Amino acid sequence: MKNNKIKIGIAGLGTVGSGVINLLNNNKDEILKRTGCEFLVQCVSARNKDKARSCDINNINFYTDPVDMLENEKIDIFVELIGGNDIAKNVVMRAIEKKFHIVTANKALIALHGTKINQLSLEKNCSVLYEASVAGAVPIIKVIKESLSANKIQWIAGIINGTTNYILTEMLLSGKNFNDVLDEAKELGYAESDPTFDIGGIDAAHKLTILASICFGIPLNYDSVYVEGIEDIDLQDLNNAMELGYTIKHLAIARKSKYGIELRVHPCLVPNSRLLANVNGVKNAVVVNSDAAGPTLYYGAGAGSLATASSVVSDIIDIGRNLSINSKKSTPFLGYMNNMVAEQEILKISNIESRYYLRIKVTNKPGVLADITKIFGKKTISIESILQKEENEKDVNVPIVLVTHKIKEQNLIEALLEIENLEVVKDKIIRIRIEELDS
Amino acid sequence: MKNNKIKIGIAGLGTVGSGVINLLNNNKDEILKRTGCEFLVQCVSARNKDKARSCDINNINFYTDPVDMLENEKIDIFVELIGGNDIAKNVVMRAIEKKFHIVTANKALIALHGTKINQLSLEKNCSVLYEASVAGAVPIIKVIKESLSANKIQWIAGIINGTTNYILTEMLLSGKNFNDVLDEAKELGYAESDPTFDIGGIDAAHKLTILASICFGIPLNYDSVYVEGIEDIDLQDLNNAMELGYTIKHLAIARKSKYGIELRVHPCLVPNSRLLANVNGVKNAVVVNSDAAGPTLYYGAGAGSLATASSVVSDIIDIGRNLSINSKKSTPFLGYMNNMVAEQEILKISNIESRYYLRIKVTNKPGVLADITKIFGKKTISIESILQKEENEKDVNVPIVLVTHKIKEQNLIEALLEIENLEVVKDKIIRIRIEELDS
Repeated sequence: MKNNKIKIGIAGLGTVGSGVINLLNNNKDEILKRTGCEFLVQCVSARNKDKARSCDINNINFYTDPVDMLENEKIDIFVELIGGNDIAKNVVMRAIEKKFHIVTANKALIALHGTKINQLSLEKNCSVLYEASVAGAVPIIKVIKESLSANKIQWIAGIINGTTNYILTEMLLSGKNFNDVLDEAKELGYAESDPTFDIGGIDAAHKLTILASICFGIPLNYDSVYVEGIEDIDLQDLNNAMELGYTIKHLAIARKSKYGIELRVHPCLVPNSRLLANVNGVKNAVVVNSDAAGPTLYYGAGAGSLATASSVVSDIIDIGRNLSINSKKSTPFLGYMNNMVAEQEILKISNIESRYYLRIKVTNKPGVLADITKIFGKKTISIESILQKEENEKDVNVPIVLVTHKIKEQNLIEALLEIENLEVVKDKIIRIRIEELDS
Repeated sequence: MKNNKIKIGIAGLGTVGSGVINLLNNNKDEILKRTGCEFLVQCVSARNKDKARSCDINNINFYTDPVDMLENEKIDIFVELIGGNDIAKNVVMRAIEKKFHIVTANKALIALHGTKINQLSLEKNCSVLYEASVAGAVPIIKVIKESLSANKIQWIAGIINGTTNYILTEMLLSGKNFNDVLDEAKELGYAESDPTFDIGGIDAAHKLTILASICFGIPLNYDSVYVEGIEDIDLQDLNNAMELGYTIKHLAIARKSKYGIELRVHPCLVPNSRLLANVNGVKNAVVVNSDAAGPTLYYGAGAGSLATASSVVSDIIDIGRNLSINSKKSTPFLGYMNNMVAEQEILKISNIESRYYLRIKVTNKPGVLADITKIFGKKTISIESILQKEENEKDVNVPIVLVTHKIKEQNLIEALLEIENLEVVKDKIIRIRIEELDS
């Protein structure tokens, strides 16, 4: 049945929810020209009706309970912007039962419950779209599922958490340490009051889970992602990296090698000549390397009310355009036919190969470097370069900064354990992977 | 009627045509997993069957005449890769008459004949897709028509011709002049033997015509695009720009201002801090600035056999995915409802406002700068900075390099005419627009 008046229900009226209502209002005429459809927000749910909001919700049916809303309203599209995963999951499953199409910005929901949500949506013949769940305004989901559909994807590497990128950028620019910049980021609204999910890499890992599935046709598998945050990045490492011609970025990487698939979120040294090294502040960017297109890059705002709403509403419009000509969404949930999505081996982090930046704090006395390089030699780890740090004879401890050739991580782990046991080595050794992003 | 075996006919077996055949072969299994469809190249046309080619055309019906092919074959999708515009237009119109869906990489075809092609395709209920016509592997067409569909687009600025970008990059890196680098580019295959269309900006203007229509919902109107090439860019201007903190790029710009729409292709000074200034060699990149998403950037290979084929096959897949579930393409030809595409005023270049880089060759004697600035003053042109070039008392002529504040181009044109008439001014004044790309 053709339908040019698309009725929408929205659960959650925070930053993104308000943005969606404002965007549908502000650009109503433009959207009508592009689609021939009117998109009407018929109902919303949020905890508190009277909270001050940046959007106008007069003339919209209001509910404090999203399930209550679903039971009472007849809509075409249900937009889930509650966040979190348990409540959101139940609400979305209920909405699909009611045969409403789903649009969500919720990465945790898709990463953790996407498989079940998709199964039910297939039974009920609904679309589930989630462009806004990764990289805000950057349309990376549709690009991979549709624009790169002719390609075998080899790897993807992204700056997909604005908070960590803001902190790393600011540390380098201002010369301040991690904690001071984190405090500033909180004041500016670039970090949550509890920033654990961002800083620790959990948020990026949810997003990488989604990206990896649509790149390689594997089931959503959050538990297989290796995660390191940026808590241990010290200003001196940012500066050392710069001396070596690199910028430290917190990357989410999924790579298909001959041994299996790597899924990892961690800080990396990226060569300054790469565009990714020049993506600063809260911006997001994703590089996709695929066999036909080669490297392509997608850049933009990773968060923000209207920027995220841009992606949410693009999904709403996709569904609306199909409803208006009585067509169906032709691209499957993960960009692969549902019966073709299949497990592939995920590599343990100890089995990856990489180059490494190492900073080892040692007692300032002759022979120390020889002791260390002897252990590396035993583990067949060869050193590509040593960064000479200015030192003062009076310093009791000095840093040795090394760059290794490409080696297996397991060998490095074993060597570092042994080196950390040397009496002359103080503190835990700092180890950051180097990603050339060139092949 | 659902259809999982999609039959394809290809006209034109040059670089891109061979790439499409190879890509469909190489990635047959991956494409089947993503789409559930088999894509079969049933017939091809090219001038000479026996020419050495990088693709295997055994078991494909061969024609020397594309129209002959259309009359004899029953296919689902016709892929036009002949290039040029007259023959290509006739062939595509014939293919639509036969109710075949169309995929093309031909920017001239769409820019010059898109309106008629679309009209016929509406009558015949066919899709016409053209992702590969702009920026090679970069999916800028679908991004604008679908992913940014919730936005009012304010401006778009792109490096969409690899040849000119390669030449400007190489001149700066190697310190060689325009003609030497152009010769090298020809040897490397980065420039055609007759490079007029690329160097002169015609190719970029065809592409900009398409981008402007899908950004603003205006009819395709190639004749309204203002075009300058890079023939007059001198090495000293590249170096002067760098001293000022800018890189010279050949940009295609479409901007909606309160006075009308600007459509222009010309060299620009771009601040080095912009990612666009760091897009080097034959790569392409497009920045779209829109009201909700803000600035987003899309980067990748602008040409090449498989890179362009990636976009061609993504269009083929889009159509195949729809055919396989008996759906139709829901996004209109220009991303706007056909009856909503409407003329808007296109600004003359003399009516735009910009900042300008100027290089004026003058007799080396006192009072010259005063004469020049007096004329600028009369035309209410204020000078933001003057770049002091090292000079030698013995030099008869010296360059004065100036940067203006934002002014109306008409005022500058009048001032420069008057200045060029001064006896102390030698040669034509070099004038390059400055684009901050910040709002």
